[in-house]
Amino acid sequence: MITTLLNKIKETKAPVCVGLDPMLAYIPDEVKKAAFAEKGENLEGAAEACWRFNEAIIKATVDLIPAVKPQIAMYEQFGIPGLIAYEKTVRFAKELGLIVIADVKRGDIGSTSAAYAEGHLGSITIGEKQFFPFDADMATVNPYLGSDGVKPFLEVCGRCDKGIFVLVKTSNPSSGELQDQLIDGEPLYARVADLTSAWGESLMEGAWSNVGAVVGATYPKMLAELRARMPHTFFLIPGYGAQGGKAEDLAVAFNAQGEGGIVNSSRGIIAAWKQEKYQNFGAEAFADAARQATVDMILDLQRCIRF
Amino acid sequence: MITTLLNKIKETKAPVCVGLDPMLAYIPDEVKKAAFAEKGENLEGAAEACWRFNEAIIKATVDLIPAVKPQIAMYEQFGIPGLIAYEKTVRFAKELGLIVIADVKRGDIGSTSAAYAEGHLGSITIGEKQFFPFDADMATVNPYLGSDGVKPFLEVCGRCDKGIFVLVKTSNPSSGELQDQLIDGEPLYARVADLTSAWGESLMEGAWSNVGAVVGATYPKMLAELRARMPHTFFLIPGYGAQGGKAEDLAVAFNAQGEGGIVNSSRGIIAAWKQEKYQNFGAEAFADAARQATVDMILDLQRCIRF
Repeated sequence: MITTLLNKIKETKAPVCVGLDPMLAYIPDEVKKAAFAEKGENLEGAAEACWRFNEAIIKATVDLIPAVKPQIAMYEQFGIPGLIAYEKTVRFAKELGLIVIADVKRGDIGSTSAAYAEGHLGSITIGEKQFFPFDADMATVNPYLGSDGVKPFLEVCGRCDKGIFVLVKTSNPSSGELQDQLIDGEPLYARVADLTSAWGESLMEGAWSNVGAVVGATYPKMLAELRARMPHTFFLIPGYGAQGGKAEDLAVAFNAQGEGGIVNSSRGIIAAWKQEKYQNFGAEAFADAARQATVDMILDLQRCIRF
Repeated sequence: MITTLLNKIKETKAPVCVGLDPMLAYIPDEVKKAAFAEKGENLEGAAEACWRFNEAIIKATVDLIPAVKPQIAMYEQFGIPGLIAYEKTVRFAKELGLIVIADVKRGDIGSTSAAYAEGHLGSITIGEKQFFPFDADMATVNPYLGSDGVKPFLEVCGRCDKGIFVLVKTSNPSSGELQDQLIDGEPLYARVADLTSAWGESLMEGAWSNVGAVVGATYPKMLAELRARMPHTFFLIPGYGAQGGKAEDLAVAFNAQGEGGIVNSSRGIIAAWKQEKYQNFGAEAFADAARQATVDMILDLQRCIRF
């Protein structure tokens, strides 16, 4: 899977992932009104609004980007109808040729982690048939429970040609409360980085492993440090734009061939129509605003990353 | 919520939580056949089998226990139909008066964690109406992202009278890979314990906080150490029985009034009919076997915990 992602990044010259995190506040009133008119002003209607919003944004950006990253929490907040919208979004993005990174941050132990891995990336056998419940291409994984929680994902990645990104150093302000604490003189995230590298050894494709790492754009020094420490680990880099991460700071994650990571932007793209910079588009052209914001983000990264 | 849980434990004299983690291998063939006949041998049929299995086990144990803990991974593995069975299970258990601890181990940042918290424990406003998507009573939370990830749960707990259990020291063999690493001479889990205690300060109900901790039964020394360290933190204790935790070892988590924690057993109860000890029940009386295993577990704990 990592080679597929890499090739798509090279084709598009865009190490960019659009975060499909639909909050009701990001969705124009007209979209919500139409969805509520069809499904009711309830969880079904809200989920339908999310789906319509996503569909328009995917269509408007699909030729520019290699991947999308739906954040499943934004769908779980609408219960079952929300999760149906999530599933529909994953399927639609894949049909249009995008790689789907499921931002699920799951992590548990043994058979429980296996259930998450099969449900989100793999398959389940019922009777004599195989079913692929959510079938994303890649997923984010929380490492707090150690190898027991991650190994079932490795098994699924190997069997189904999928990939994961382990949370190493997250982009949020309080990530240091645990992740930066020193163990034998080195931060916890470095310990997680070493485990992640080791987990990835059996899942190499060329120079890169199907076991990647989440490293926030908001901590550029750590990004550089981790790039040196994990030379075969592909990075999923959140925190660009709205959270404060800058293209200049991210360049360290990429090598001379422009390889090494994919940068996510959610709000900065999907809610572009609400920004002053894109206000001329108006609410009705929210998808065009998202497209323009994607173009701008790609140009911004291309200034700093060589392809 | 923690007072409600405490009262239910006192009424039943059973600090016991039945883990509703339906794997297909635990469900008798007859239950599966009937479900497949109605819904097809597919994800819908498998989810229906899980639901029927849960329904029978809840009915057979409801008068004995204060709470159930569905592990959401076991439902996510069946995609949307699985999650519908999860929702149905939560609702049914609550209707019968049980407290539902959603074992979701969610954790993310800011607005994303808020979405998880509202979706699983709280509510979402659409138009002028409030909706309660999954509406469990308590949930497990992963602390790897720090306070940013936990605070939205605290807000929901305060507003909706709900509770959480933060993963402090998990029961699995590899939990020490990160959790036991020493920071300034103390293990990471102790750091998480201190954060958890601090998060719980604003959510006290009498002697106990609505912010609890997950501490595995499989590490009795750490259980004792953490009980002393976090005197106001209620423990959710997994790992009893099938995973190796013993009643003798757990007693340290409880005070002289029998307060301090709730012990979970999943496989040991729901798949009791597959154990030699309960084989006389036969597959058709799987729920009676689960009831007997619950009675046995309660007696075993009562030997060691004073009420």
